[in-house]
Amino acid sequence: MNTLPCYDLFELSLSGPQDGNPFLDVQFSAQFQLGSRTVPCEGFYDGGGIFRLRFMPDRPGEWTYTTRSNSPVLDKQSGAFTCVPARAGVHGPVRVSGRTHFAYDDGAPYFQVGTTCYAWNHQGEKLESQTLATLAGSPFNKLRMCVFPKHYTFNHNEPELHAFERGSDGAFDFTRFNPAFFQHLEQRIAQLGDLGIEADLILFHPYDRWGYATLPFEVDQRYLHYLVARLAAYRNIWWSFANEWDLMTKSMADWDSYLKLVQQLDPVQHLRSVHNCRVLYDHGKPWVTHVSYQTIATSPDIAPVGELLRQYGKPVVVDETCYEGNIPNRWGNITPQEMVRRFWDATALGGTCGHGETYLHPEDILWWSKGGVLHGQSPARLAFYRQLMENHAPGGLDPVKDVLGRNFHAVGRGSDYYLVYFGLHQPARIAYNFPEGHRYRLEVVDTWQMSVTPLPGVYADSGEIDLPGKPYLALQAIHL
Amino acid sequence: MNTLPCYDLFELSLSGPQDGNPFLDVQFSAQFQLGSRTVPCEGFYDGGGIFRLRFMPDRPGEWTYTTRSNSPVLDKQSGAFTCVPARAGVHGPVRVSGRTHFAYDDGAPYFQVGTTCYAWNHQGEKLESQTLATLAGSPFNKLRMCVFPKHYTFNHNEPELHAFERGSDGAFDFTRFNPAFFQHLEQRIAQLGDLGIEADLILFHPYDRWGYATLPFEVDQRYLHYLVARLAAYRNIWWSFANEWDLMTKSMADWDSYLKLVQQLDPVQHLRSVHNCRVLYDHGKPWVTHVSYQTIATSPDIAPVGELLRQYGKPVVVDETCYEGNIPNRWGNITPQEMVRRFWDATALGGTCGHGETYLHPEDILWWSKGGVLHGQSPARLAFYRQLMENHAPGGLDPVKDVLGRNFHAVGRGSDYYLVYFGLHQPARIAYNFPEGHRYRLEVVDTWQMSVTPLPGVYADSGEIDLPGKPYLALQAIHL
Repeated sequence: MNTLPCYDLFELSLSGPQDGNPFLDVQFSAQFQLGSRTVPCEGFYDGGGIFRLRFMPDRPGEWTYTTRSNSPVLDKQSGAFTCVPARAGVHGPVRVSGRTHFAYDDGAPYFQVGTTCYAWNHQGEKLESQTLATLAGSPFNKLRMCVFPKHYTFNHNEPELHAFERGSDGAFDFTRFNPAFFQHLEQRIAQLGDLGIEADLILFHPYDRWGYATLPFEVDQRYLHYLVARLAAYRNIWWSFANEWDLMTKSMADWDSYLKLVQQLDPVQHLRSVHNCRVLYDHGKPWVTHVSYQTIATSPDIAPVGELLRQYGKPVVVDETCYEGNIPNRWGNITPQEMVRRFWDATALGGTCGHGETYLHPEDILWWSKGGVLHGQSPARLAFYRQLMENHAPGGLDPVKDVLGRNFHAVGRGSDYYLVYFGLHQPARIAYNFPEGHRYRLEVVDTWQMSVTPLPGVYADSGEIDLPGKPYLALQAIHL
Repeated sequence: MNTLPCYDLFELSLSGPQDGNPFLDVQFSAQFQLGSRTVPCEGFYDGGGIFRLRFMPDRPGEWTYTTRSNSPVLDKQSGAFTCVPARAGVHGPVRVSGRTHFAYDDGAPYFQVGTTCYAWNHQGEKLESQTLATLAGSPFNKLRMCVFPKHYTFNHNEPELHAFERGSDGAFDFTRFNPAFFQHLEQRIAQLGDLGIEADLILFHPYDRWGYATLPFEVDQRYLHYLVARLAAYRNIWWSFANEWDLMTKSMADWDSYLKLVQQLDPVQHLRSVHNCRVLYDHGKPWVTHVSYQTIATSPDIAPVGELLRQYGKPVVVDETCYEGNIPNRWGNITPQEMVRRFWDATALGGTCGHGETYLHPEDILWWSKGGVLHGQSPARLAFYRQLMENHAPGGLDPVKDVLGRNFHAVGRGSDYYLVYFGLHQPARIAYNFPEGHRYRLEVVDTWQMSVTPLPGVYADSGEIDLPGKPYLALQAIHL
């Protein structure tokens, strides 16, 4: 019998009918079974008479399957494979852990350090390969990217591939997907997965000149069916239903139905979020797994992470809070210091943050949308940040009050670890007030200079500590 | 006939009864008259059998007066003086100008650049003289200061003088003011006036161990009568009814009645404000002349100046938005860069800002409360800021949209002058869009390095400008 490591992708390919419109005419699905557990799974038409079924086994054991179709040649095909333990370094899809943190399916910690290349996958082989190489050497373990190409300032180039076939009149035929487009997309998603990077895949966005933003309801629905069938078996997918849902013309009923549809179809139950511009989608709805927040504050204010955590009890990712760069747009020209500050501040409030980079470029290759190489000074600091977080708090941190300093943003993991971040504040002295009976060592973290300096001695109960009194410092307390 | 320059202080001193309690028993007032205009004015008992009347003439001409008293020796005393034009550099009290700006009574511009030394006047001659010398060389033209002493962290020293006499039991006799206390206070206010500094005099505050914060209603009322009688003739007084009114135990009815009482009594109609901690006093009430705002934002967010301007249509002064320093308290340890940023940001939103400094000091002499000398790096930048503002926009600036850049904080004075401030943003290129038919020269202002760099050429209509792409820059457009 075939074997397959857990969380890898099982694919069944069958030849079927090419006549008529197989995208519309042929239903094709399967039931996968492990012991008494059954998992329904939709197949899809990949062009050229080929139908495929993809499945991601999440537990070792003997899996069997049987297909169903209204086409006799695709119906009642059975098979089996043995799922063996995952390959080293593979931990499965990321899920919500506890209430407000993330972890991989197998329980390994996942601490989100995201970046954004909205349209990197529409730039052609040369640039896309360069982006992958850059990501391989970067600190980022999540990438926000769009299925559809982007039309916007700095983004006027035509993509090589489109999601729909064109009819004889040159217009898109919304009843026929272009398999080459999706084959390319899933190749890029798989490559990200090989780099340990989650693909926060944006299903809809408003920056469009081709018609993707305003597809009819039934086309949106077919598109979601097709996406889930093709992509759900990739373990590193997150479903981000929108970039800036509130700038689009879809109704609230449409949005709700799209999220519910994917919730119903997705055998893996990947994370689901809805990113805002000005107005938040109601994150209390049960099909939203976490908050994907954009702050458009006119001041360098980080999102109200604490309020979002309290209100929704879900992880808060500040996916967009201005980008390091120098373009005219207000959201695209903060300093690297400020970009890094926002990561630490979001963390010290109990959430995590997203990076982006927008430096003017002679060929308009800005990381935020096209990828390429990174020019900024924040990624090195974010590598330091990620390393420190993964060393001390890979499972995430929760807000605490008045343990280290008063009224500063501070977080902890039970009584094992505390972190306070001072940002633009530079106290030369702060108070500490540790839980009774616990002893700690203290380290001053210079988040910009990337240094960790232990303070001499052991700290317990309450007292005062002298600090260097400069900006961008954090202080961590590690349980002895 | 005696002559007196306009806006100077006229004082009439008369001997009267010392028996009983002259503070309570003797009513003493006058009517001042210039042509057909009459101005009522309360007198006060200054101890030692001396009663005084103070008056600030605001127009040249022949002023006459007649006293009224229930004590025959103080009643029906008449006199006259000739008010002559003001001395050079004297422009009278500051008033609201237009809707949201300030100007002196004679129409000369006043652009608010404030600082804070809450209890400087309770520190004894040596330190108080040093504070005055520091202020003389500083950029500040307004000082927030308390009538009563301050009890708080870093502020545990006992003042030399108290506002009430003590009874034989050592306790304050709230029916008898201590003239020496008020003589000292008005000496300091006059010295500030000589330096061209407005005294934003805080009448009540919660940081107290002596009982000043919780005086009975009728004592508060007598205190306000006494203060107005003694101080209203000093042209540089602003009445700040509270530091952090919402931390005190007075009722809303009390606050309203206190503001209305001073509005009714004050012959000069000095500015009246109420400073908040968390909850704003209703600045829509007609006896409030301007917004004196504290932001306690946990992020480096400047106050919602634009919203306050729209809501109240009154000048907005962000009197407290953290202080440059390094003390443990979150509000007292921002960097000098951040202190300066907040001034420019408040300005670019259509308001003005207040400075404070809180560096740890071996003898706990922190500028914010005790005065002394300035240690920080922001005052030099605020001198540059004040000079630039007074050169280009002494009458104040109003919010504008999309003239210089899009969605940055920007202000202008009609079509004569525009200013956009980028703060932590560093665009290397922005768009401009000037009103039709107007031509401008442009200057890049480095608010931290204190440089002004003209851009070559003349600018009109719309287009794009390249900028240095670094933080803390402003750009100003000056009409040709």
